[in-house]
Amino acid sequence: MRAVDIIIKKRDKEVLSKAEIDFLIENYTRGTIPDYQMSAWAMAVLLNGMTDQEITDLTMAMARSGDMLDLSQAVDIAVDKHSTGGVGDKTTLTVAPLVAACGLPVGKMSGRGLGFSGGTIDKLEAIPGFQVDLSTQQFINQLKEHGIVLTGQSADLAPADGKLYALRDVTGTVQSIPLIASSVMSKKIAAGAHAIVLDVKVGQGAFMRTLEEARQLAEVMVSIGRLSGRRVIAVLSPMDQPLGNAVGNALELKEAVEMLHGVGPEDYRYHCLHLAAYMLILGGLAKDIPEGIGMAERAINDGSGFAKFRELVLAQGGDVRVIDDLKRLPKAAFVESVYAENGGWASVVDAKEVGETSVALGAGREQKGDLIDQAVGIIVKVKVGDAVDKGQVLFEVHANDPRKLQQAKERLKNAVKIVNRPVEKPPYFHGVIGI
Amino acid sequence: MRAVDIIIKKRDKEVLSKAEIDFLIENYTRGTIPDYQMSAWAMAVLLNGMTDQEITDLTMAMARSGDMLDLSQAVDIAVDKHSTGGVGDKTTLTVAPLVAACGLPVGKMSGRGLGFSGGTIDKLEAIPGFQVDLSTQQFINQLKEHGIVLTGQSADLAPADGKLYALRDVTGTVQSIPLIASSVMSKKIAAGAHAIVLDVKVGQGAFMRTLEEARQLAEVMVSIGRLSGRRVIAVLSPMDQPLGNAVGNALELKEAVEMLHGVGPEDYRYHCLHLAAYMLILGGLAKDIPEGIGMAERAINDGSGFAKFRELVLAQGGDVRVIDDLKRLPKAAFVESVYAENGGWASVVDAKEVGETSVALGAGREQKGDLIDQAVGIIVKVKVGDAVDKGQVLFEVHANDPRKLQQAKERLKNAVKIVNRPVEKPPYFHGVIGI
Repeated sequence: MRAVDIIIKKRDKEVLSKAEIDFLIENYTRGTIPDYQMSAWAMAVLLNGMTDQEITDLTMAMARSGDMLDLSQAVDIAVDKHSTGGVGDKTTLTVAPLVAACGLPVGKMSGRGLGFSGGTIDKLEAIPGFQVDLSTQQFINQLKEHGIVLTGQSADLAPADGKLYALRDVTGTVQSIPLIASSVMSKKIAAGAHAIVLDVKVGQGAFMRTLEEARQLAEVMVSIGRLSGRRVIAVLSPMDQPLGNAVGNALELKEAVEMLHGVGPEDYRYHCLHLAAYMLILGGLAKDIPEGIGMAERAINDGSGFAKFRELVLAQGGDVRVIDDLKRLPKAAFVESVYAENGGWASVVDAKEVGETSVALGAGREQKGDLIDQAVGIIVKVKVGDAVDKGQVLFEVHANDPRKLQQAKERLKNAVKIVNRPVEKPPYFHGVIGI
Repeated sequence: MRAVDIIIKKRDKEVLSKAEIDFLIENYTRGTIPDYQMSAWAMAVLLNGMTDQEITDLTMAMARSGDMLDLSQAVDIAVDKHSTGGVGDKTTLTVAPLVAACGLPVGKMSGRGLGFSGGTIDKLEAIPGFQVDLSTQQFINQLKEHGIVLTGQSADLAPADGKLYALRDVTGTVQSIPLIASSVMSKKIAAGAHAIVLDVKVGQGAFMRTLEEARQLAEVMVSIGRLSGRRVIAVLSPMDQPLGNAVGNALELKEAVEMLHGVGPEDYRYHCLHLAAYMLILGGLAKDIPEGIGMAERAINDGSGFAKFRELVLAQGGDVRVIDDLKRLPKAAFVESVYAENGGWASVVDAKEVGETSVALGAGREQKGDLIDQAVGIIVKVKVGDAVDKGQVLFEVHANDPRKLQQAKERLKNAVKIVNRPVEKPPYFHGVIGI
């Protein structure tokens, strides 16, 4: 078998066999297939597509390219959750403890921020001392003992995906549904997931811009699940405006913890309760959405969700005082507001613009390796469909640098559009696939 | 400017600017754009195509990536000739001296064999002592003094093409008309051609399999000529069966020299006279085909064509005795025939099969760097449309290894198809573009 023949086959729109895909991924991982062949192949995949079976074979080949975590020694069923990334998406921080409090263990590996979209691991690091680089054994022990773990992606899992992802980034081959789907699913499967709830974001603040693309991606990932024997549910959720109000690491952590106390924006509450319910259904603890939502609400109301989050922080070496008293979280030196210049109704709150402004304040990385400022970010005080009065606060900017503060305030003026007739509120979900 | 953005533009079927193409080729030549970006780009070009203007910009960028030969110090007009490669194609060896004898100087850089298709330089090396690696200065001096030079491709000319060609070979990006056309034309333009006669081969023994593809390639190259200020004529000639009778280095050299004496197969004679005529027209020495053919025929009949070839061999240090007495050329130890197993009419003489069998005998390279056996090869004794008697000789196999001899004889049995009703002779040309 030769790599060039496999490239030519995909170039000519033929279907690759499992043996061919295994050959490609094994040898690429090992370094015997060079980057220049892999990038030509990735471009052919991007332009010519793959069948669901090919995508599943690719997913499994990448999953098997490194260690495969076996969580059955720790839990009966491992239910994972993954978001394709958005602005203000702190869902894992609320949902994982709620679900764990309901008796479904959650052991999850998360990523860092990418571009304008935040990452769970960066947000957790707003808690002083919180360890995000657990070993596999620590991961399994903690999952068994506490029923909850949130850690960074292990480099030993799906190394082929890590290598291919870095290559795709510089060769114009990121925007391919087969490559995105197999990248996400290979990491989840290598991390031991038996079932997965996917949150596929769609809109101006997401990697999938149109509902059509997002639906395709969701369907492909559900299909990979079916073909690889994992139960998968994909929620399509809008990401034109930020989720909830808080954008930025400590600010989002605060909002997530407040939601565990039952306090917070309506869209974020709805999102968390539904994702929790889908996880509980996949885990076999709830028979339907109303039952799952009821369980999650009880975990909020009886304090067991918050108690589980506290247990997580303690288990991973974090300073639990900042969780007990959120005023102890890192704080920015300057907090200033952006006001509405005229009244009306908000028709746009641009998630991408807000996300990029937050990154520019220091909440994310403009270049690989940049240090993150945990304290900075933006509180979004207006949602699409809200009536707005002239002079009303639209955003609260948290900054540590006066120049960046002014730039952010200028920029955010253009992130909101106010029109002179009522605007309908967007839906919380566009649909669910796989249930 | 970033390479990844140029890749994405081509991925999205957009048209690249001259500045973008220059940036890509300059930086690829210099090594600041890596192979893995270039191969992704090449795949995007293969699948999404290029406009004639983009192909011309690419051609000129590759031509300018190294030295640009200026032949105007040696000749008034430099007319080059290029074949896209076929089996038994020894045309340059006959045509270059004929045209030079008519007073049009020919300074040509040629290639070596590639796959089943032979190369002029390998054939010339059947002459002991013949030097094929002249310096630029030697090239120009000889062109001025003798009006004829045949040498190998200088590595200093169009180095971007050399680098990209090697990359395309291992990334499934050879079969792209924009990339093939720009590769051919960049080398010709860097080598100083003012006008070019292209011989685009089409059929089972050529890189272009269908007339449609060949015509597209020819039209693109004629268009590059128009856009870059070079006159270009492209002949479309069939390559389903070998050209002439001889396949293999010394055997082909012999056939080419015999044609300079006026002796040889009719298809080869027709091909040579017409290509010579097109060169003479582009060089301004003939006004039309009949006049050009008349001039070439006179150069055969008065011996001036052969004299010019002799002058070439002497100038480049070759042993002229093997030209004066062709029996002195390298000879194979075994010569055996393949006979017709039944009578009828030949409907197929498979050029690719004959070419590959010749390579397997040692006339070409199965791997880069293999040594060539000048003596071995095949004399094709039957042409498509010929009536065949049972027991008639179809091929004469020239071999130096008894095992390879037997394998070749077996293989050649399947290279001919004999049917029981008359078959029409194929045309010598499918058409001419650019005149």
